[in-house]
Amino acid sequence: MAELLTPDEITAYLDEIFPQVKGDFRIEEVRPDGVRMRLMVDDRHLRPGGTVSGPAMFALADVSAYVAVIAHVGHVALAVTTNCSIDFMRKPAAATDLIAECRLLKLGKALAVCDLLIYSEGVEAPVARASLTYSIPPKR
Amino acid sequence: MAELLTPDEITAYLDEIFPQVKGDFRIEEVRPDGVRMRLMVDDRHLRPGGTVSGPAMFALADVSAYVAVIAHVGHVALAVTTNCSIDFMRKPAAATDLIAECRLLKLGKALAVCDLLIYSEGVEAPVARASLTYSIPPKR
Amino acid sequence: MAELLTPDEITAYLDEIFPQVKGDFRIEEVRPDGVRMRLMVDDRHLRPGGTVSGPAMFALADVSAYVAVIAHVGHVALAVTTNCSIDFMRKPAAATDLIAECRLLKLGKALAVCDLLIYSEGVEAPVARASLTYSIPPKR
Amino acid sequence: MAELLTPDEITAYLDEIFPQVKGDFRIEEVRPDGVRMRLMVDDRHLRPGGTVSGPAMFALADVSAYVAVIAHVGHVALAVTTNCSIDFMRKPAAATDLIAECRLLKLGKALAVCDLLIYSEGVEAPVARASLTYSIPPKR
Repeated sequence: MAELLTPDEITAYLDEIFPQVKGDFRIEEVRPDGVRMRLMVDDRHLRPGGTVSGPAMFALADVSAYVAVIAHVGHVALAVTTNCSIDFMRKPAAATDLIAECRLLKLGKALAVCDLLIYSEGVEAPVARASLTYSIPPKR
Repeated sequence: MAELLTPDEITAYLDEIFPQVKGDFRIEEVRPDGVRMRLMVDDRHLRPGGTVSGPAMFALADVSAYVAVIAHVGHVALAVTTNCSIDFMRKPAAATDLIAECRLLKLGKALAVCDLLIYSEGVEAPVARASLTYSIPPKR
Repeated sequence: MAELLTPDEITAYLDEIFPQVKGDFRIEEVRPDGVRMRLMVDDRHLRPGGTVSGPAMFALADVSAYVAVIAHVGHVALAVTTNCSIDFMRKPAAATDLIAECRLLKLGKALAVCDLLIYSEGVEAPVARASLTYSIPPKR
Repeated sequence: MAELLTPDEITAYLDEIFPQVKGDFRIEEVRPDGVRMRLMVDDRHLRPGGTVSGPAMFALADVSAYVAVIAHVGHVALAVTTNCSIDFMRKPAAATDLIAECRLLKLGKALAVCDLLIYSEGVEAPVARASLTYSIPPKR
């Protein structure tokens, strides 16, 4: 099996291609079968009451799956999300980082599938679950 | 049938409860069976290459469904998204507003279901489709 | 644009590759942008109370999307469903055929996306909505 | 915490309310946080080539989530599926039972959420994943 990209390599790459979200996310761990990502919660992710917004949770799910895929396939900037299904199950804790535990369930030639659970850090019951499909462009 | 809230009433309400996204969206039309919403695309919604990001499209889908629901049920700040499924089908046109055409398919006592197509303004083929479920809290 | 397969051509093909469901479905109309399909409701599709089962509605959604795709791409037995999201919104009318109105939203080289509404025949409010992705194998 | 229903109690109940699928499924294990279910694969679940059909996998996902919910809430025949998202990832092994590993992620007053992985028995890589929402009617 090919080597995985390291968190530092992936972070440098994300900062380059997604400069708008630089500083939002931190890669906590990269394993062959998935990743753990952190959303460093900030005012711009919050709704009144201090709860993290749906779009911020979607963004965490999306970037987690992207990282799980490019750790294997490398710098494929064109890998694109084709589908996401997300269930919001509980209100996140106020002003608390979110942690995504993402599993890479399939890494095919054309499609990759991940699922993930999102937690408020330190809270046992997950706040959301999501599954995503990425389309992987053919190698040149 | 009860009267619908007007776009101005809904906008005032959104600005109050979602101040972070003030100026991102414009309600183009509210009908009994749905709404048309615009994402006024700005640098913070873009990926390199000028294409609108997935989280920005998710946010447009989410707010469109929310508006379709509260137009009927009124100021129910607690109405919450419980599920969203979204398919990204085509790359949005560069630096072009997105238009969501949202249909309210079900408005039950506890759950509302919407679906929508998202277009780059002036382009015929949709860039994304989404379906969302909102949970509506019981009236006090 | 290439010619569409006719309902008779598609039906002959379905009977050959899906003999188990022969007689369950009828193609009502094939258009460039979608199809209308009927589930001819029978005892084996029903739950106690006479309502159509979830798996029978899923099967109708799946075959509708398949027909919408193969009408364009021809006899590609290997076209496979990769994702389906389905919302069950209302109880179907007892012992009444179901009608699916399916739109082909994207027909790409590798992926096709459809969505559809399912109705109890003669009833205005839809009982379900679904969206499906099909993976289309490369031409030899 | 209330006691769980046993597999025998649930099976007797399923046979009564879903007589059409009697003999299709077997409850392998019921735990507080989920269930393991088996689809005893038979000719009527197969497609040409011997692979299990999509609707049969959907049915397995649906009944698994239903069992996970009613193990907790008891004989609530009206608990209904409101949403299912399913990803078909690999071709099932020919003529081999399917095993669903289902997790009960949320059991609220009005909604329950499950996810699950489906395997061909004895094969490590999952053939499908699904997530489902059940609506639970208020107690009388």
